[in-house]
Parts: sequence; structure tokens; C-alpha cells
Amino acid sequence: MPPLSLLRGKPKQPGLPPGTLVNASREKVSKTSIRLFDFTDTNYVEKPVKSVNDLKGLASSKSVSWIDIVGLGDMKVFEALGKLFDLHPLILEDVLHTEQRPKFENYDNVLYIVVKMFSLDKKENKINSEQISLILGKHFVISLQERPGDVFEPVRQRIRDGKGVRRRGPDYITYMILDSIVDNYFLVLEQIGERIEELEDELLADPDQKTLHKVNSIRQEAIILRRSIWPLRDVVNRFERDENALVQPGTRIYIRDVYDHTVQVIEAIETYRDILSGMVDLYLSSVSNKLNSVMKVLTVIATIFIPLTWIAGVYGMNFEFMPELGWRFGYPMIITVMFAVGIVMLIYFKRKKWM
Amino acid sequence: MPPLSLLRGKPKQPGLPPGTLVNASREKVSKTSIRLFDFTDTNYVEKPVKSVNDLKGLASSKSVSWIDIVGLGDMKVFEALGKLFDLHPLILEDVLHTEQRPKFENYDNVLYIVVKMFSLDKKENKINSEQISLILGKHFVISLQERPGDVFEPVRQRIRDGKGVRRRGPDYITYMILDSIVDNYFLVLEQIGERIEELEDELLADPDQKTLHKVNSIRQEAIILRRSIWPLRDVVNRFERDENALVQPGTRIYIRDVYDHTVQVIEAIETYRDILSGMVDLYLSSVSNKLNSVMKVLTVIATIFIPLTWIAGVYGMNFEFMPELGWRFGYPMIITVMFAVGIVMLIYFKRKKWM
Amino acid sequence: MPPLSLLRGKPKQPGLPPGTLVNASREKVSKTSIRLFDFTDTNYVEKPVKSVNDLKGLASSKSVSWIDIVGLGDMKVFEALGKLFDLHPLILEDVLHTEQRPKFENYDNVLYIVVKMFSLDKKENKINSEQISLILGKHFVISLQERPGDVFEPVRQRIRDGKGVRRRGPDYITYMILDSIVDNYFLVLEQIGERIEELEDELLADPDQKTLHKVNSIRQEAIILRRSIWPLRDVVNRFERDENALVQPGTRIYIRDVYDHTVQVIEAIETYRDILSGMVDLYLSSVSNKLNSVMKVLTVIATIFIPLTWIAGVYGMNFEFMPELGWRFGYPMIITVMFAVGIVMLIYFKRKKWM
Amino acid sequence: MPPLSLLRGKPKQPGLPPGTLVNASREKVSKTSIRLFDFTDTNYVEKPVKSVNDLKGLASSKSVSWIDIVGLGDMKVFEALGKLFDLHPLILEDVLHTEQRPKFENYDNVLYIVVKMFSLDKKENKINSEQISLILGKHFVISLQERPGDVFEPVRQRIRDGKGVRRRGPDYITYMILDSIVDNYFLVLEQIGERIEELEDELLADPDQKTLHKVNSIRQEAIILRRSIWPLRDVVNRFERDENALVQPGTRIYIRDVYDHTVQVIEAIETYRDILSGMVDLYLSSVSNKLNSVMKVLTVIATIFIPLTWIAGVYGMNFEFMPELGWRFGYPMIITVMFAVGIVMLIYFKRKKWM
Amino acid sequence: MPPLSLLRGKPKQPGLPPGTLVNASREKVSKTSIRLFDFTDTNYVEKPVKSVNDLKGLASSKSVSWIDIVGLGDMKVFEALGKLFDLHPLILEDVLHTEQRPKFENYDNVLYIVVKMFSLDKKENKINSEQISLILGKHFVISLQERPGDVFEPVRQRIRDGKGVRRRGPDYITYMILDSIVDNYFLVLEQIGERIEELEDELLADPDQKTLHKVNSIRQEAIILRRSIWPLRDVVNRFERDENALVQPGTRIYIRDVYDHTVQVIEAIETYRDILSGMVDLYLSSVSNKLNSVMKVLTVIATIFIPLTWIAGVYGMNFEFMPELGWRFGYPMIITVMFAVGIVMLIYFKRKKWM
Repeated sequence: MPPLSLLRGKPKQPGLPPGTLVNASREKVSKTSIRLFDFTDTNYVEKPVKSVNDLKGLASSKSVSWIDIVGLGDMKVFEALGKLFDLHPLILEDVLHTEQRPKFENYDNVLYIVVKMFSLDKKENKINSEQISLILGKHFVISLQERPGDVFEPVRQRIRDGKGVRRRGPDYITYMILDSIVDNYFLVLEQIGERIEELEDELLADPDQKTLHKVNSIRQEAIILRRSIWPLRDVVNRFERDENALVQPGTRIYIRDVYDHTVQVIEAIETYRDILSGMVDLYLSSVSNKLNSVMKVLTVIATIFIPLTWIAGVYGMNFEFMPELGWRFGYPMIITVMFAVGIVMLIYFKRKKWM
Repeated sequence: MPPLSLLRGKPKQPGLPPGTLVNASREKVSKTSIRLFDFTDTNYVEKPVKSVNDLKGLASSKSVSWIDIVGLGDMKVFEALGKLFDLHPLILEDVLHTEQRPKFENYDNVLYIVVKMFSLDKKENKINSEQISLILGKHFVISLQERPGDVFEPVRQRIRDGKGVRRRGPDYITYMILDSIVDNYFLVLEQIGERIEELEDELLADPDQKTLHKVNSIRQEAIILRRSIWPLRDVVNRFERDENALVQPGTRIYIRDVYDHTVQVIEAIETYRDILSGMVDLYLSSVSNKLNSVMKVLTVIATIFIPLTWIAGVYGMNFEFMPELGWRFGYPMIITVMFAVGIVMLIYFKRKKWM
Repeated sequence: MPPLSLLRGKPKQPGLPPGTLVNASREKVSKTSIRLFDFTDTNYVEKPVKSVNDLKGLASSKSVSWIDIVGLGDMKVFEALGKLFDLHPLILEDVLHTEQRPKFENYDNVLYIVVKMFSLDKKENKINSEQISLILGKHFVISLQERPGDVFEPVRQRIRDGKGVRRRGPDYITYMILDSIVDNYFLVLEQIGERIEELEDELLADPDQKTLHKVNSIRQEAIILRRSIWPLRDVVNRFERDENALVQPGTRIYIRDVYDHTVQVIEAIETYRDILSGMVDLYLSSVSNKLNSVMKVLTVIATIFIPLTWIAGVYGMNFEFMPELGWRFGYPMIITVMFAVGIVMLIYFKRKKWM
Repeated sequence: MPPLSLLRGKPKQPGLPPGTLVNASREKVSKTSIRLFDFTDTNYVEKPVKSVNDLKGLASSKSVSWIDIVGLGDMKVFEALGKLFDLHPLILEDVLHTEQRPKFENYDNVLYIVVKMFSLDKKENKINSEQISLILGKHFVISLQERPGDVFEPVRQRIRDGKGVRRRGPDYITYMILDSIVDNYFLVLEQIGERIEELEDELLADPDQKTLHKVNSIRQEAIILRRSIWPLRDVVNRFERDENALVQPGTRIYIRDVYDHTVQVIEAIETYRDILSGMVDLYLSSVSNKLNSVMKVLTVIATIFIPLTWIAGVYGMNFEFMPELGWRFGYPMIITVMFAVGIVMLIYFKRKKWM
Repeated sequence: MPPLSLLRGKPKQPGLPPGTLVNASREKVSKTSIRLFDFTDTNYVEKPVKSVNDLKGLASSKSVSWIDIVGLGDMKVFEALGKLFDLHPLILEDVLHTEQRPKFENYDNVLYIVVKMFSLDKKENKINSEQISLILGKHFVISLQERPGDVFEPVRQRIRDGKGVRRRGPDYITYMILDSIVDNYFLVLEQIGERIEELEDELLADPDQKTLHKVNSIRQEAIILRRSIWPLRDVVNRFERDENALVQPGTRIYIRDVYDHTVQVIEAIETYRDILSGMVDLYLSSVSNKLNSVMKVLTVIATIFIPLTWIAGVYGMNFEFMPELGWRFGYPMIITVMFAVGIVMLIYFKRKKWM
């Protein structure tokens, strides 16, 4: 039951002082790799970064920088990062404790956004969750993810292509990253939708206890997805409306678009839940129907043959004086009576539609 | 299960940059046809438009124009339209990705409204959904729909008739279009209501597993309708209350009327859902009742004949010393005893109302 | 299933222009009768009105007028009324389309209130619904109802009696009418409550499938009542709080009282729904219990006699060498064994409380 | 089903003019007894009051008066009271119609509070409800209850004792009365809690249909209690926050304390409802389990003996040529076969854990 | 059923005057032990305190003091404490009545916070609840708990260690205590989560009535936990946002972090509840499936052997003229017929998948 384990995460060990940097990510990727995208209207640089010190000066330079970090294993990187960009200790703690609830925090000098990303593990037919942190400053945005993956690849490609993106600021980069994450939700929804449709066919054909376990398991997944995505609605909404100088008015309308998509995702999950709970009803009634049909067979056979057996029993009695036994046509007569009784009963059951 | 597929739409391919114009409508109508209604108090022109360029000058002319576009296949039309009327790239993207949630956006120069329209496909007994976009500017309104259809025909007719409509602005045209869409919902509701009544009769007569599948299928339709219409409430409300110069005060009271009808539609759907969930209870209990009546027949027959068969069996035993067997009236006596037992049991079952 | 039909009403034919006057009331009362109550502190006139023209001058006269209209059949009356009292076309449309949701609209010169009135049809054991429109102006109030009825009679009587009422304005008359409508709801509630109590007795005594259908039918009625009364809460609240010069401060506290009663009605309906859904559980469990008791009888009889029948069968076998058959007391011995087995089983079942 | 009757009350006879003084209390206590507590920092008077006229002057005197009225039978008292303290006619009407919803009304000169009090009728194991009205003026508070009872006794005692109470105003007296009423709710909750615990034991031991009826009956009580106490939350909240000169700031923090207790009562009721609905599931599943165990007994017995009976039947056939019948050890052989079959089946059932 | 008893607490004996100091804690720890942590940037004192008088002067001294009190048995301590720190009588009352709802009160001179702490009693597999009160003044914070325990130990340790904590004020100490309490919730959640996973395995393997009782018992625990933690959300939120001089802006962002964790705990509990209610469905359906499989065995055996027994019965009849009985191969023929019938039926049941 893997989804349940998603529930047990705790943001930090009880009693640890806030701001203690411990990698609490379930993914133990010890390597932390950094990639820098730095551009202005006219210039464009993309390069891997070996040491955080190479990023010095970016925080105040007027070019737009996207610091794209994968893997949360190297504590020194985060300590250096914290000093370089003047990040509140709680930001670094939240980045590393990957069981956060999606949230939006305005720390005056930066905006801090935590969201969940889901990816399909087609082999094991399950959904993996990953925490993405976004730190948006005046001239930079830092994205942090647990595992390497290609969800942000289209964003990188668009920066490489240029196409007007380079004239915009780090807020727009943040928007693009959020947008690609939310777009990714639709893929997950689509897979769940397909599994629901398969289950509906199974329910119509020949459902058994396993079908119900599958329904229940998708229901649990939907519950947990919902739990992760529901707060995102509020996060994106506050990102759009928060009063700060870090998000430009022209970008807000794009964030609004992400908000609409988030709401759409949530509504789809709610709809799935409604549909799944209807499927439980269908399953339970199909079990009852099966019982009914089993009982009808038993009843038909038993009510036909039990009286007949009694008749046979009567003429198997050993009384000395049973005149019928001596009759010439006693036997065929009684056989005829038996068939008559049987046929009458069959007609009765036909009428009752038990056969 | 067609309604489910409605759920899987995604507003755009993951990772595509915003503003990319791709026709994502499920309806692949390649032709895009445009019809222009242009009028003032005194003049009235209605004509098909071949090229978007023919619309030049309308955006700034003081006459009221309704640009009525059907079919979303021709990308060039939309690019030209975007330039001509100075539309934000997100508007055009949303127009073409027809899985939007109903929404209202105020882009300063225009108001952008997305709503869903439903039409009955009586042949296949299903509900088709279509996205309608409305772009309201100072002197024009653009309506975009996926398929040709006659839902807007009454609106066109009223403009042709004149009757005071021509003295009003494009906001009133927008109202009339919304009104005709919401009025159309009532037709869909009526059809669903009729199917629910049919199902209620079926439930009272002779329900089987198919009845439940039908109930479930209407329930799913209601869930999905609700999902599409629920946000409309907010859309129309914001359309009425939004502070802008594009909607005149005199029109707002009419929009309020559309709002009331939208709420009425939503409440009717909620009521349907309540009624449908009561029907599931009825069905489940009717299955139990059937099982009960089957079991009663079995029990009555078995409990009457099993003891009798035992009596017969006793006198079928081959003991040498069984005095009853030699009695002159042993046989009729035992037959009488059997009937007596049978009749006593029948009376017992009558009293228990099992027969 | 009459209540369902209440759901299918649509406020107007799709596509009809707003303000078209068509009588869409389900009640086809062609006659429209008007009764005028006109009074000041000192004067009092009550008379039937033949022609709307006789009402001229009332709108501006300082006396308080209540124009009490019954029957919505005569379109000319409403057109004339609209002109005389300067009513917005949407008001007249809403008056005539009697499937409106309860609503409150402030049209500057008048307040327009739509509410539902319910009356008991004791013969058919169903609830009839009727739409009441109230139009409150500076010196007049117009009430419009579909059918003649005596619900407003106490209001009329109090005006005739005088008793301080005549010193008050048309807002107080409106309050009195609303109050008498809401008071009437309690009668409907009381009838529903009585039927619920009857059903509870039936559930405790001997419930069958019909009981459940009755429970379901009351549940549907409660759903539909709730749908009509729920918006009334908002209507009365806005009537109390709306900022306008038409309602005097002294009257508002009375309207607040109506509001409290409306909330009480809604809460009672909610409580009924909770109770009814508990009754469904009771019914379903009583069906299961009946099945249990049927199965116990079958099991007791079958498990006692099937082994005995086997014993009889054994001694009915025709083996040549069965020493017991020749024993002198073989037969009574085996009969004794049979009774012993039967009694042991009976004791076992007694202990298990199956008998 | 006594609690249901609580639901049917209507605040007044339909059509009666507001302000009509009719005793609509279900308790027909004709006598109305009045007790006066009048005190300042230094003085203290407690005395029964024969005539309302004896209260003259209290409304304006600077001493704090608590007019403690029991029994709502004497209309003249209330008319006189209304005049003396200048009470709005609606207050008097609400005092007398004891089916009010708890409410808080600010009538400028006085605050009017209606709450419900519950008391345990241990003999009949039911909950009685009583309406308490509190009218708080500048120098006085009037409390009105339907029946004599000792719930206010601690309040009276504290006034007699002095202990700082006499330095406070009538708002503090009102707080003390409210506090003693809400404290009393906890006693009712405790009794319900005890009955729930008893039912849980019953459910674990040997539940039958009666258990479910008890669960349902407590559920109904909880529904109705909730209905009476839920609005109290709002009442107390508004009493605390309402802007008026009648409640002193120092008293508000005490009212806040009552508010907290009210919320606690509501939450406890909600929790009871959740627990009770879990108990219905438990009951239903215990019924299914019983059916299962009945069916297992039947199945075990029937599937063991039916095949054995067939074997006996085979050797009871009268064919002339059945070689086994002549065998010397045919009979013991077949008996052995029968026992073997029986034992194999028993082992099979043991394994399936049906025994 | 220990959790239920948590519900029955009442904040104080009915009718007791507010401010009466009575130890109503369920834990009867008569000893009250006090520990003082007093520090400035440079100094640090930690010592046990014998008498409250030793605390004199702390309230006004500029050093930060944490007065850590365990055990609520000694009334004199609390009276002295109340005078020394000028605490409102309601605070002391709430401290001692340990059935409070979590709450936040701003008493101008101090902030008063009540929260619940849970600890695992691994021996009895139950959750103990304890009330923690926090009183935050300008230069001090008083924490009061019912039982000694080591949940606050990490907080104490951090103060001893120094590490920047000593530069902060009592608001930060309060934050640290709240944080350690909320962190502790995750441990309780984890234990519940583990028990849910065990139950899921049990449900998949071989569920019986006990499984359901366990599900129900965890459900009750979840309901009661939720009841205690839900108001905490509001408490922490108000602690963060309350306008006062006692909480410094720099601390508020830390409190916000506690808020996020609280929300996470609540959401996890909600998710557990959803999952548990899905488990009830699974259990109920597994019971039905078991019944189905029992009935199938019965039906298969009975429908095979009952007709065969009838055939045997027919040839056990004693008619004189039954030609088959004299046939040479009558017996093997009829045995063959019987086997044929049996095999046909077995094939039929195989096809129906009943075997």
C-alpha cells in the first residue's frame, strides 16, 4: 500500500531546533548538481556550476538567473546558498524536509514556493511524489528538486530558444516552472482516468473482491493527490495576489492561468472521487445479485426435488397394506405425477423469472 | 462510458509555451466561418466575412458589431483576429483549447468569457459539450463556437427584427448569447429529469442490475454537468459585478437575471443528485427483498417436506419388528399424519406472512 | 411522482427575448381579479377593481395602497400595470413565469420579491406550490398570486380591523404577507412531521418495500421544499438589510422576525432529512433481520431432519447382513436415538438463541 | 418517539398579528411567580413580588435588579411588564411562544436573548427542553423560564453571598445565568455519553434490532440537541461582540468563556454523531456476520448428510441384481465409507474455518 | 472504550462561580514542581523553585524567564502565581480545568494559550491526552503541564546550549514549546498510520468482526484527535496574527511554520478518516463475499445430490410392477445415469465459476 506511506512523513524530527539542515528527503541522492541559466535581453549563458561560490554576484547583477538545482544531498551547498542569497533559515529547512505541504511564503527579500510534482512509475503502476521548491528573488529564481527529471526540459528549451522569454524577469521563469508542473498533473489524471474506465468495464463484466480493492486503491491515491494539490490552489492564488515588487503585473495574468488549471485539476479529482464512490455501490450490488442468482438455483432445484423425493419415500414405506403398490399402473402413474409436479414448479419459477 | 472522457481533457499539451496557437478542440472542423452583424440605431448590416481583413476598422467604429465565428480550425484567422482586436495571447490560446473551465477574465481592453454549451444527441442518448468563447470589447463582441448549431439563432433573429435591441451595445448582445445558452441548459435538465422519472417507474416495477447501471450513468452525467455549470455561477456573477466601462448599468440587471437562472440550474442538478442517491438505496433494498422472497420459498418448501420425508424414511426402514407396518390402517394413518404436519406448517408460515 | 415535476420548470422558453409577457404559470386561471385596499390613518377603502385604469393616481397618492391580484391569465392587465407603476420589463416577465427561484431585487423605484407558497392538498396527500410576487413601491404594494386562496385573509382582516396597521406603510403590509406565507410553511412541516411519525411506527411494526418507497417519497418532498425555502433565507435577509428608502427602520425588526422563522423552517427540514436517512438504515437492517429469521427456521428444520433422514435411510438399505434389523428392540432403539439427536440439536439451537 | 414532537412547534398560530400575547408554551403553568433581587455595592434586597406595579421605578433606579420570573401563564403580568420596561411587542411575543430558535436581538434600550435549557427526566429517560428568555436593560435584567427548577439556584446563591458579584452590573448577572445554562448542557451530554457507552457494550455482546432502534433514537436526540444548541454559538458570539453600552468590557471576557464552552458542547455532539454513525455500520455488519454463521451451520450439516443420505438411498433401491447387497461385509463397508466421507468433509470445513 | 471518556469532560462543575480554583485535572498529581530558566544574552540561570515567592521580581525584570510548572495539585501555588503575575481569574480556572478546548486569549498584559498534548501509551495501545497551558508575558513565559514528561526536554536543552536562543524573548520560547508539541503529534499520527496499515493487511487476508471493531476504534480515536487538534489551527493562526506587543515580528514567521505543521496534521487525520471509511466498505463486502462462497458450496452439493437422492428414492419404491427392477443391468445403468447427472452439474457449476 505505497500511497499510505506518503502520509506518514513529518516535516522534521521532533525537537530539532528550527533551521537545522538535515536532508530528510526520502530520495537519498547524495549528489547535488547545479545548472545556471543567466540571460539578459541580449546575452545568454547556460553552464553547470561546480561550487556555490561561482554564483557570487548573481544576487545583485541585473541579468536574470535561473539556478536549477537537482538533488538535496549536499548540506554545504545549501549553507553556502543560504549565505549567498541571504535566505531565512526556515526556507532552507523547508527545502530539505520534503514532506512539506505546498505553501507560499513572502520573506520580503524573496518569495518562497513549495509544490508537489507527481510522476508516473509505469512499471510499478504507482505515482511518485517529489517536492519542488522555488525561491524567487529580484534578479534570480532558484528551483530545487529531489530527483533528476525532464519535466522542466520544455522550460529550459524555451529559454534557449529565446522567443521573447529573455525579455521577461525571474517571475516569468517561476510561472513557466509552475505551469509545467501543473500541466504534468493532467498526465497523472489521465492515467487515473484510464484505470477508472478499465475498472468500469471490469465492474460491468465480472467483478470480484479484487476489483473492489483496485477501486479502493485508486480512491486512496485520489485522496492523497487531492491532499497535495488542494493547498496548491491557495498557493497559486496568493502568488498571484500577493502585494510585492517581485512579481510584475504582466506576469500575474499568466499566474492566473495556472490558477485556473489548478482548480480544474482539483475538480477532476473530486469528480473521480464521486465516480469511484458510485462504483463501490455498483460492486456491492453486483455481489448481492450474484448471491441472488446462486440462491435461485438452489431454491429451484431443492423445491422441485424435495417434494418428489418425499413422494418416492412414501411409496418406499414398508406397510403391508398399501393398495397402490399392487396396482398394475401404480408405478407409471406415480412417475407421471412426479413429472407433473416438476413441470408445474418449473412453470412457476419461469413466471417468477428465477430461471 | 462517454461522459468520463470529458474529464480527461487538458487545457494544453504539457510544456507548450503559453500563447501557442494549436487547435485542441475535439471537434475537428477545419473550416472557420465568420458572420458579421453590424448595426447602429438606424443602420443594420449582416454578412458573411471571407477574410479577417474585412473586419478592419470595426474595433474603433462606433457601430455595434457582433462577429459570430463557427469552427476553430483555421489558425491564421485567429492570428489575424488577435492582431486586429489587440487580444492577449492567452485569450487566443484559451479559445482554441476547448477543455477550459468556464471563466471570466478582465483584460482591460476586453472582457473574456468562456462557457460550456450542452446539446442533446437524441440518437445516442448522450449529452455533447461545446466550448463557447465570448470576447466583449467597447464596440464589438466576438463569439466563437466549435460546431455550427442553432442555439444562437433566436439572438440573430432578434437583431434582425430590431425591436429595441439595436439601440443597445455589445454588452447586451453578450447577455443575450449567455441567456440563450443558460436557457438551453433547461432543455438538458428536462431530458435528464424525464430519464430519472422513467428510472423511478422501473425501480417500482422490476429493477435489475441494468437499472442500477442506468442510475449510475445519469449520476455521472449529473456530476459532470455540475462540474461544468458550477463555475458558471461565479463567471456570471463576476460579469455582473466587475467594475469596468464595457458593461452598462442597464445591462447588469439582465445579467443578474441570467445569474438567477444559473443558480436554478445548479440547484436542480443538486436535487437530481440527491434523488439519484435515494434511488440507489431503493435499488439495493429491492435486491434484498428479492433475496428474501426467494429464501422464503425455499424455506417453506424445505421445512414442510424435509420432516415428511423423514417420516416416510422411518417407515421405509427394514426392521423385522415394526408393529405399525402390519397395522390395517397404518398407511392411511401415516398419510394423515403427514398431511396434518404439512397443514400445521402452512398455517405457521401464513401467520409469519411468508406466503 | 408529482414532486419531481416541480423540478423541470424553466423560467421561460429558450430563446424568447427577455420581457416577453407569456403566461407560463402551470395554473391556467384565465381570469385576473384585482382587489384594492387603500387607506390612510383616517380613511379606508376596499373595493374590487375592474380595469387597471381605475388605479391611476395611486402610484403618486400619499395613501397606502395594497393591490391584491389573483390569477395570472390576463396579459393586458400586466402590460397596463407595468406602464402605470413604471415597472421594469423583467419584473413582469418574472411575475408570469412561475418557476422562479425566490429572489429579492432592488429596482430603485420598487423592490421586487418572489417567494413560494405551499398548500396542502389533503385529498391527494401532496403539496402544491404557488408563486407569490410582491412589488413594493413608495406608496403601494402589489401582491400577485396564481390561485385564489385564503392565506392572505388574516392580513386583509387586520387591515379592515385597523388596529394600528393603517398608520404603517406598504413595507409593513409586505411584511405581513411574508409573515403569513412563512407561518403557512409550519403547517406543511407539521403534516410532513406527522407522516414521518406514522412511518416510524410502521418501521417498528412491520416494514416492507412500500414503507421504504414512502420514506423516499417524503425525502424527495423534503429535498424540493428545501430547494424552494433555502433561497428565501437570503431573500428575507436582503429585504431586511437592503439600503433603500422604501423600508422603514421600524419595519426591519419585524422582517428580522420573519427571517428567524425562515431559518427555523430550514433547520426543521434539515432535521427531517437527517431523521429520514436514519430511517433508511433502520429499514435496511430490518430487511436483513427478516432474512436472518427466515434462514434460522430453515437451518433449524434442515439440520434436525437431514441427519435423521439419513439414519432412516441407513436402516432402509437392503443389505442381507444387517444384524440390527433382526434385533427385537432395534426399531424402538433407533427411534429413541433419533429423538435424542433431535433434542440435542434443539438444545444447541436454543443456546444459540436461534429459536 | 418524543423528540420528534420538539420539531413541530411553530412560533405562533399562522395569521395572528405580531405582538399578540398568547401563551403558546407547552407547559401550562398558569401561575406566574416573580422574585426580585435588587442590590448595590452596599445594599441587598431579595423578595417575592406580587404585582408588577411593585417593580415601578426599578427601570430607572441605579441599583441592579434581577427580576426572576417563573411560569408564563399570566398574560396581564406580561402586558404590565411590557409597559413598565418599555419592551417592544415582539419581545413579549417571543417570550410567550416557547418554540423560538435561540436568538440575540439588540432593541437599543434592551438586549433580548432566547436560549434553550435541557433537563434530564431520569424516570422516562428523555430530555426535556425549556425556553429561557433574558432581557438585559441598563439597570435590570429580567429572566423568564417556563417551569420552576433549580438550575439558577447557584446564581441566586452567589448574589446572596455577595463575593464581588454585587459590584458588577446586570450584564454580569446575565452572564452568570447563561453560564449556568451551558454548564447544564454538559450534564445532558454526560448522560448521552453514558448511554452511548452502554450501547457500545451491547453492540460488542449481542446486538439485535432493538439496539439499532436505541442507536437511532440517541441519534435523533443528538440531531435535535444540535439544532437547539448550534444557533446558541452565534447568539453568545453576538452577545460578546455586539456594540452597545449595556455590556461592559470587563464582562465580555467572561461571555467569551461561555462561548468557548458552547463550542465545546457543539463539538461533543458532532463527535457523538460520528460515533453513532460508526455504530450503525458495526450493527449492520454484525447482522451479516450472524447470517453468515447461521448459513455455515446449515451448509456444514447439509453438505455432510445429503451425500450420505444419497448413498443410503442407493442401497435402499430394490433392484434384483445388486451384488453388494449380498456381500457379507457390505453393510459395515458402506457404513465405513459413509464415516470416511463425513470425516473428510469435516476436515475440509475445519480448514475453511467454518467450524 | 477509553477514548470516549475523553468526551465527557466538562470544564467545571455546573454552577461553580467562575474563577473558583479547583483541580479538575483527571491526573491527580498532588505535587506541583516548578523549574525556572532565567537568562539574558550573557547570563543563564536554571534552578528548581520551592516557593512562588522566589519568583518575585521576575515579572518586571528585563531578563527572559521560563517558569516550567509540572503537576496541577497545589492550589496555593496557583493563587500565589495569579497575584504575582497579575493573572485574570479565568486564566487560573482554565489552567486547572483540563478539559478545555485549545484556545488563544489576549488578556492585554499576557497571552494565554491552551493546547492538547498526546503521548503514546505503548503498553495499553492507547493515546493519552494532557492539557498544556502557556502564559506569555512581556518578560516571562509560564508553561503548565499535568504530568512530568520529556516532550519539552529538547527545548530545555536548546536553552542550556545557548545557540542564539538566549538572544530571543519569551515569545520565541513559547514558539519552541508549541513546535515541540506539534512535532509530537506526528509521532502519534505515525503510530495510527502503522495500525491502519496492519489493518489493511488484515482486511486483505482474513478479516472478521474484530477487524471491524479495530477499524471503528481507530476511527473513534481519529475523530477525537481531530476534535482536539482542529481548534489548534485557529489558535496558532491567531497567535501569529494577533496584534500585540508581546510577539515580535521575527518570531511570527516561526509561528507560521507551526501553523503549517498543524494544518498538515489535520489533513493527515482527515485522510485517515477517508481511508478508514473506505476500509469499512471493504470489510462489509468481504463479509458478503464469504457468505457468497458458503452459499455456493451448499448449492453445489445440494443441487447435485438432491436429484440423485430422488432417483435412488424412485427405485426404492415398493411397487410390484416396476420392470426396471428386474432388469439384469438395471442397477449399473442407474448408477451410470446418476454419475452422468452429477458430472453434467459439475460442468455447469464450473462454467458458472462457482467452484
